[in-house]
Amino acid sequence: MAKRNPHLAKLQSGYLFPEINKRKQAFLARQPNAALISLGIGDTTQPLAPHIAEWLQSFSNGLATSKGYSGYGAEQGNYNLRQKLAEVVYNHKIGPTEVFVSDGAKCDIGRLQLMFGAGATIAVQDPTYPVYVDTGVAMGQTQHYDHEKGHYSGIVYMDCKPENDFFPDLESQPRTELIYFCSPNNPTGSAVTRSQLQKLVNFAKRNHSILIFDAAYSVYINDPSLPKSIYEIEGAHEVAIELGSFSKMAGFTGVRLAWSVVPEKLCYDDGTPVNKDWNRINTTFFNGASNIAQNGGLAVLEKQGMEAVNTMVRYYMKNATLLRDALQGMGYQVFGGIHAPYLWVKFPGRQSWDVFEDLLEKAHIVTTPGSGFGKAGEGFLRLSAFGHREHVEEAIVRLKRHCL
Amino acid sequence: MAKRNPHLAKLQSGYLFPEINKRKQAFLARQPNAALISLGIGDTTQPLAPHIAEWLQSFSNGLATSKGYSGYGAEQGNYNLRQKLAEVVYNHKIGPTEVFVSDGAKCDIGRLQLMFGAGATIAVQDPTYPVYVDTGVAMGQTQHYDHEKGHYSGIVYMDCKPENDFFPDLESQPRTELIYFCSPNNPTGSAVTRSQLQKLVNFAKRNHSILIFDAAYSVYINDPSLPKSIYEIEGAHEVAIELGSFSKMAGFTGVRLAWSVVPEKLCYDDGTPVNKDWNRINTTFFNGASNIAQNGGLAVLEKQGMEAVNTMVRYYMKNATLLRDALQGMGYQVFGGIHAPYLWVKFPGRQSWDVFEDLLEKAHIVTTPGSGFGKAGEGFLRLSAFGHREHVEEAIVRLKRHCL
Repeated sequence: MAKRNPHLAKLQSGYLFPEINKRKQAFLARQPNAALISLGIGDTTQPLAPHIAEWLQSFSNGLATSKGYSGYGAEQGNYNLRQKLAEVVYNHKIGPTEVFVSDGAKCDIGRLQLMFGAGATIAVQDPTYPVYVDTGVAMGQTQHYDHEKGHYSGIVYMDCKPENDFFPDLESQPRTELIYFCSPNNPTGSAVTRSQLQKLVNFAKRNHSILIFDAAYSVYINDPSLPKSIYEIEGAHEVAIELGSFSKMAGFTGVRLAWSVVPEKLCYDDGTPVNKDWNRINTTFFNGASNIAQNGGLAVLEKQGMEAVNTMVRYYMKNATLLRDALQGMGYQVFGGIHAPYLWVKFPGRQSWDVFEDLLEKAHIVTTPGSGFGKAGEGFLRLSAFGHREHVEEAIVRLKRHCL
Repeated sequence: MAKRNPHLAKLQSGYLFPEINKRKQAFLARQPNAALISLGIGDTTQPLAPHIAEWLQSFSNGLATSKGYSGYGAEQGNYNLRQKLAEVVYNHKIGPTEVFVSDGAKCDIGRLQLMFGAGATIAVQDPTYPVYVDTGVAMGQTQHYDHEKGHYSGIVYMDCKPENDFFPDLESQPRTELIYFCSPNNPTGSAVTRSQLQKLVNFAKRNHSILIFDAAYSVYINDPSLPKSIYEIEGAHEVAIELGSFSKMAGFTGVRLAWSVVPEKLCYDDGTPVNKDWNRINTTFFNGASNIAQNGGLAVLEKQGMEAVNTMVRYYMKNATLLRDALQGMGYQVFGGIHAPYLWVKFPGRQSWDVFEDLLEKAHIVTTPGSGFGKAGEGFLRLSAFGHREHVEEAIVRLKRHCL
């Protein structure tokens, strides 16, 4: 038969969340009546605002009429939506043709691999959202996994720890063609300052690297002095791609809608605009996000929609504050949870998966082991602030009861 | 700056439909008041059945309630939908875990490239749906485009012409790891018989190749003796992947919903099940189709939905019959249009793009040049039967008036 792609064989076990799910299912098989609470996967739980659901609904309704029906849209997205994103999210620092609407940031990361190809060298934060690494491995950008180092050979891992304020020591990093950087960060919950981000842009510029800046959590930034987009930074248009998403911004994790920005000024070393290739990748490998979801995106970007976004953000961030206060009260060192819906909790001297199992067995709480995000995450747990308030409150009671 | 992926530089001009659109826009710039009729891109035009729109609408409505809200679903799709596809489309010849729900067949083809990787050798029909070729080129499965031959070096092109009943002479084909085959065919409108498909399966088996069978137009088959799925054929479970789509089946071109089938019996030469890798690719590079669209898919697969599918198919196929009869009456040799919504019309001694320009200039009709689908399509036009009846009737009047 046909040969297996050797790069797929390099991938380690499952992607993190399927692995967590497997352990959860195994636990439930033993204790089918346990009332599990999930502080694990970052999945939205609050219903959409009526205003947003109405736009989804009325568009759906229109599809049964001659006037409202529409077939294929532009692969790059509805032009009105691209314009509205350029206006509302980027305050016109970005033009509509620099914005590409998609079905998800994860999917965009996959398509970015196709664009940059197997020859690209990459740097990621450690800990990191696993998708940057796994899609790069599958694409062939790395060698094998080094079990001793806990790393793939061929990837530059930039340590982001409490000791360096979760910002890598750039001077010690070798040059790579691509640098992934996520802020507000999944999983650590840290957010870069303006001067840190300027340093990163300068570093990319000096090294002729392209930054892939993942800003999927930007609406959770709670301090107007922190940058919400990399394009607020001088020189970013020449070095950076940005990813945005309606998932955590508006509860669209199931509806599926996101976007990417590739400025026209961003070019390869041969002068070809990256935007041109990104357009080709999107038209060839993709057929546009659902037109219903795109209409929902337009609703989100209306004044009423953005008010709903703020209400939702406040709700989840109240959860974060409750969790943070409780854990700090119990003596734990807690990071994040201020500009991001994730808390990064240190368990000194312990292994992440052991703490994960402990919390699952004793408190019936599902979390995410920090080591699943990379070697530098060992000894940490990521707690997600997405969830119903009563579940978060009950989780806090259980955490205190079990002195975990 | 970072280097450009050398494989992207191999891609010829635009993907076919953007190129057509460019020419259409140039024409409209010159004649802004022309009432263009499109028989070009295969895009659905008829509103959804009320039953289907209601399911989309009620799901959207539910998203604003605690009970109806849902976040991330399984990347592989809602299990009920996978089950329903296995039952309604495959009559249980395929199991639910062999079905993967997606946002489009084009996107699935892209992800298939990621799964098989740059090392895979491929064969395509000529003419062919351009996406198999373009995604393979971008992935690095080919060498450069040979302008003289009108082919990419490294791809096996299987001529499908009237002379061979649009079925390739398999005995003369070299072995490749992957074979793309589309039936009912886009663009020629031909549909394979059971015995032809058995030959193809046997050929793949003998050569240890994997067949990628694109059945996106299967509901248009008008003769119960023709196979609608490759899994009706003995031995197909060991050699074939099948692609299906709600786009042309139910008018979901804008809603975005499709599926792929990877049987558990299909293995690589090292014995690894392909299904396992496909699952990994889908969980790593994709995050599930929109939950609203998936609920629409469930509505389509209900009895009432399938009745609406039949009504829609009859509508478009009536268009096909009208076009076919008119063109044959004018003395043209017309293929397709019986088991597929595409007509493949021969213009002896002429170049496809010349006929395209002629029809655009004189009759204000947009078509698709056959040569855009490959060298063997030179001298043909593809006419799409998707469209409003009155436009098709007006197109026929104009065709007759201009004696084209």
